[in-house]
Amino acid sequence: MSWIEVTYHLRGSPEDAQARARAIAVEQSIEMPPEAVDDPYVLGEILGRVAAVAPKGGGLHAIRILLSAATVGDDAGQLLNMLFGNSSLHDDLTLADFALPPELRAAFGDGPQIGLDGLRGRVGASARALTCSALKPQGLPPAELARLAEAFALGGIDYVKDDHGLARQAYSPFPQRVAACAAAVRRATVRTGHPTRYVPSLSGSLDVVREQLRIIGEEGLDTAMVAPAVLGLANVQQLRRDHPDIAFLAHPSLAGAARIDPACLTKLWRLAGADAVIFPNHGGRFGYSGETCRRIAEAALAPEPGLATIAPVPAGGMSVARVPEMLDFYGRDVMLLIGGNLLAEGDRLSEATAEFVAQVHQHSQAEARAESHV
Amino acid sequence: MSWIEVTYHLRGSPEDAQARARAIAVEQSIEMPPEAVDDPYVLGEILGRVAAVAPKGGGLHAIRILLSAATVGDDAGQLLNMLFGNSSLHDDLTLADFALPPELRAAFGDGPQIGLDGLRGRVGASARALTCSALKPQGLPPAELARLAEAFALGGIDYVKDDHGLARQAYSPFPQRVAACAAAVRRATVRTGHPTRYVPSLSGSLDVVREQLRIIGEEGLDTAMVAPAVLGLANVQQLRRDHPDIAFLAHPSLAGAARIDPACLTKLWRLAGADAVIFPNHGGRFGYSGETCRRIAEAALAPEPGLATIAPVPAGGMSVARVPEMLDFYGRDVMLLIGGNLLAEGDRLSEATAEFVAQVHQHSQAEARAESHV
Repeated sequence: MSWIEVTYHLRGSPEDAQARARAIAVEQSIEMPPEAVDDPYVLGEILGRVAAVAPKGGGLHAIRILLSAATVGDDAGQLLNMLFGNSSLHDDLTLADFALPPELRAAFGDGPQIGLDGLRGRVGASARALTCSALKPQGLPPAELARLAEAFALGGIDYVKDDHGLARQAYSPFPQRVAACAAAVRRATVRTGHPTRYVPSLSGSLDVVREQLRIIGEEGLDTAMVAPAVLGLANVQQLRRDHPDIAFLAHPSLAGAARIDPACLTKLWRLAGADAVIFPNHGGRFGYSGETCRRIAEAALAPEPGLATIAPVPAGGMSVARVPEMLDFYGRDVMLLIGGNLLAEGDRLSEATAEFVAQVHQHSQAEARAESHV
Repeated sequence: MSWIEVTYHLRGSPEDAQARARAIAVEQSIEMPPEAVDDPYVLGEILGRVAAVAPKGGGLHAIRILLSAATVGDDAGQLLNMLFGNSSLHDDLTLADFALPPELRAAFGDGPQIGLDGLRGRVGASARALTCSALKPQGLPPAELARLAEAFALGGIDYVKDDHGLARQAYSPFPQRVAACAAAVRRATVRTGHPTRYVPSLSGSLDVVREQLRIIGEEGLDTAMVAPAVLGLANVQQLRRDHPDIAFLAHPSLAGAARIDPACLTKLWRLAGADAVIFPNHGGRFGYSGETCRRIAEAALAPEPGLATIAPVPAGGMSVARVPEMLDFYGRDVMLLIGGNLLAEGDRLSEATAEFVAQVHQHSQAEARAESHV
């Protein structure tokens, strides 16, 4: 018998918190009055338990609950269901954290297959931050997106991804878009010598996504982006098992981060096998604090035996001017994602990209020099 | 060119609301500075537009945005992505409502295939409320769950569903559980003459769910429960297309209703083809108000040409004592779901179920008499 330890944050009074903790332990396990249960296995090994209730300040209480690992099996979707299924419907409650027992961790599969090290290795960046940009806006035809992709690649970018809005639209069908962008990036890499990766965005049902991955393989690509909150975590887990050679970037679309702590979500996605996690950097278009961003990066990079670290990808209104500050903040275990700020350069796109790339390289070299002087 | 009209609720000042409306229109469409775009198609037919910003009281503003239907295609997951993908990351913003243009509605498929009328017809309840209960707690072996299922069926219940926590657990594997419960319900229906339906809960990746549906078909069952927020809406849409004879009950697990208006979510699930929507009734374990519940029921039942109405299923701590009040509130276009309150009766489970069933029948008869006297 083993237990998942789950932490929730509740807004309410101390008396409420005690009662709610008991209610959550029931809700997320047997979901019926314990006094109506007489089965000793259910009462002893399935019914959730309150481990601790403690004030956290700011009107919040931290509630720690033990949930039976036996209820989860090896299914990432069922893990979400047991962690926060019904309790997600309470608007005063946040899923804050969880810890799996080792055997449940093992049952989930091997986690990320490429990870930060692999993402670095593929672009020959053994010890520096990685660079990334995004193809947009929506509405452009494949040829235009390919032109942008080529410009990014000519600028020496490491990864260039589809905007998460690019899907299977009539004005830019997936096969044509991916073929055009992949060809454009291949052309550019011949000129630059830098193995830029193009990262198509996956969308649709699992069936549709599989067909997209087939096309990606045919184009010789080895990286793809997926939104776990849209596709479903169990399907991400299935893709991870079926495609060990693909690096998966997880996009936060629909992640509803105010209800699930974003560092907690990062942990989940890493566990399901995502190789990189995109999130809104502080000081950009979203309200995440620097502290939240640091916790997301830590969740991506925390050492876990048998589980690869994955790339934190801060994004969301970033600019080349912020590169040094971001690298100071995140260090080099990061993939910097700058989209609109580069695209706004118009005809100077390749040059602006090259400046972005150069900034990252220089910063890493300066850092390495500083380290060697210590 | 056609547009999706989307309504968001924002907490903030009037000046903020105007600026945020423009930002949302960009975020949910081209996701880059419009001044950096010169493509006329993108600017004219893809870039989101602010339709209206109006105070709603209580510090809230209603923001209406027009989003291009061309960005969605026929994919329910992509619809979610465009409606609320990145904007779900703002904790002061709620997705409140949306309206699809007719051609996009049509592209999504035919919607619910069984619907409320079919759910009624299958159990011979042409003009009354339907009854439903749930098999729990988790941790019971198949034989024990089957015993409960048989008791519910002997009580004359219309539908008996798995608890949404029942998945593919070692102590109760899906094939054994479903076979045992289906057989138990078949035995009971021979005695009662009432065609009680057993409703297994689906879980896992789309592949796993397909295998579960194969087993369900082998057992002669025609109803299943799915959690769209866990499986992914595009996968629900796919199941709907592949299994026109199955009635799908949508479970709210992980629905994070505080961020997406639950009536709005009901609309989405109906559109994707769910035949019934389960939600926490007011006065139960969850904080939904009567007004919220009424709006959910309205979203399930609103007349829509070419789209079947679906069953509202209020649940979450309901009791037999509340049946008359619930029927007064919802009328007969409803499926009442009572679980723990019946299970708490122990050895009296069948009798208590029969009382529940009788209450619903009597109320409907009384209502019919009252109508005939008007």
